[in-house]
Amino acid sequence: MMSGSTAKGTAVRIGKLVIIGVGLIGGSFALSLRRAGQVGQVVGVGRSRENLERALELGVIDSWVQDAAVAVQDADMVLVATPVGQMAQVFAAIAPVLPPGAIVTDAGSTKCDVVALMRQHLPRQLSRCVPAHPIAGSELSGAAAAQFALFENRTVVLAPLPETDDEAVACVRAAWQVTGASVASLRPEQHDAIFATVSHLPHLLAFAYVDTVLARPDARQCFDFASTGFRDFTRIAGSHPEMWRDITLANQAALLAELDAFSATLAQLRAEVAAADAGALEARFARARSARTAWAERFNRR
Amino acid sequence: MMSGSTAKGTAVRIGKLVIIGVGLIGGSFALSLRRAGQVGQVVGVGRSRENLERALELGVIDSWVQDAAVAVQDADMVLVATPVGQMAQVFAAIAPVLPPGAIVTDAGSTKCDVVALMRQHLPRQLSRCVPAHPIAGSELSGAAAAQFALFENRTVVLAPLPETDDEAVACVRAAWQVTGASVASLRPEQHDAIFATVSHLPHLLAFAYVDTVLARPDARQCFDFASTGFRDFTRIAGSHPEMWRDITLANQAALLAELDAFSATLAQLRAEVAAADAGALEARFARARSARTAWAERFNRR
Repeated sequence: MMSGSTAKGTAVRIGKLVIIGVGLIGGSFALSLRRAGQVGQVVGVGRSRENLERALELGVIDSWVQDAAVAVQDADMVLVATPVGQMAQVFAAIAPVLPPGAIVTDAGSTKCDVVALMRQHLPRQLSRCVPAHPIAGSELSGAAAAQFALFENRTVVLAPLPETDDEAVACVRAAWQVTGASVASLRPEQHDAIFATVSHLPHLLAFAYVDTVLARPDARQCFDFASTGFRDFTRIAGSHPEMWRDITLANQAALLAELDAFSATLAQLRAEVAAADAGALEARFARARSARTAWAERFNRR
Repeated sequence: MMSGSTAKGTAVRIGKLVIIGVGLIGGSFALSLRRAGQVGQVVGVGRSRENLERALELGVIDSWVQDAAVAVQDADMVLVATPVGQMAQVFAAIAPVLPPGAIVTDAGSTKCDVVALMRQHLPRQLSRCVPAHPIAGSELSGAAAAQFALFENRTVVLAPLPETDDEAVACVRAAWQVTGASVASLRPEQHDAIFATVSHLPHLLAFAYVDTVLARPDARQCFDFASTGFRDFTRIAGSHPEMWRDITLANQAALLAELDAFSATLAQLRAEVAAADAGALEARFARARSARTAWAERFNRR
């Protein structure tokens, strides 16, 4: 029912795809594969009947059920795109009924915890488990946010287990390539350290910053004068609280290290401000600006 | 030579406008007034001959000189749009030759320090001094970045002195209204506290964050996986180092208070992460998200 191919990265042909969690990520993945004619049928699973109905209306899925164990019967690929906090329950529910050849992949923003859950709940299916992280977050959520082009020119990181067979990795890789993404591989612990730095820490800082403004007696007036710098800096503070609670807890150790590293830098900066050390401040700002400008040039060429 | 009017906010008619510091802000102000036919001639002053030549080629100014004292002869309005750190020198240079009726205004991001400099260097011209802050920052700089529409739907804050006469305030107000901005008034110290919160603190946090990433041994690999969240969160870390050094020093007291308030929030957040306090984390994230979402809805309607 499924043949993986990386030739030009555009053919995968999945017979039955089950999307557990039909939100921005799961819904956009389904839309891309459907549009490319690379999937026979897409079955959606989720907690909200209203969201599943909306996904059906929008042509994101062909049908839905609320019971994941029913959905995965005859599945060729199962994408678990729920918040990480729900994955234990999902894996436990599908473990007894998953067809032997079905590939199980996910879209979680952390990987060590997903690997641990797969080892715990799917010990006999590890050769078909392909932990993955599509880097295409947004402050939007729900099936209504799904879009064809979400993954174009984005990166998807695969973090396979030593037990994962090559054919399963190749299929997941090919499926993501169909969506327009480029695919990279990292070890799970390497993935989690890197994303603690470039994604999870900035989210916590943005949440903490908005919370600091809110605590001011003149918060309303402050918001009235906030402009484009504030808008961009705080965009990620509009992200989904439950999802970010789960990511924070799942990547706790790496995030504590990041918070401490940032706090140390901030303490140095505070000392420079207190000492009115113009040279140190300008050097620090210039170093950050130069790195950020070089990064943006590379990022915009992708 | 100059008649101020707030009728419909579109007429001002300045005979000779001198722009000291022909960058993004000064250049865009000149362009808007020229396009609206509300200015007789615009003379540019600056440190870089190359930038002034570029401004002349682009039609931002009619002529330039490098000596501010020469430029302000016969001026009706002088906009000092240099970094705040250069203003003392500029005010000192123009003080002896400024025509009695000439209005002096600025575009600095801090106001208490500009007020202090005006009191020090322009004690006999205080009735014509109108400290101002157009809120239209960008990580771009130089005359080549000047654009007609920069101030459309933006806010300009005036922070006049008790000595400033109403006609001078009305003229500066009308000039900014010609550019499409809406004009608000704040006391200088109120201005500086609010902007420490909504602008200066986020800039310091973004600079410190990029600097923290840079300090990692795997910084290059981290940058490779950074995506849109990182892009938006760090955009303001691309801002001008000299300008932000000056703003930081000019608003030192308010910024130290902001850094301490933020650090206290961050310490609470760290404790919640260390304790794996799911409820507290989700509540904090939800509170920030809700405030940010409400703000964005208001901001986008402006």
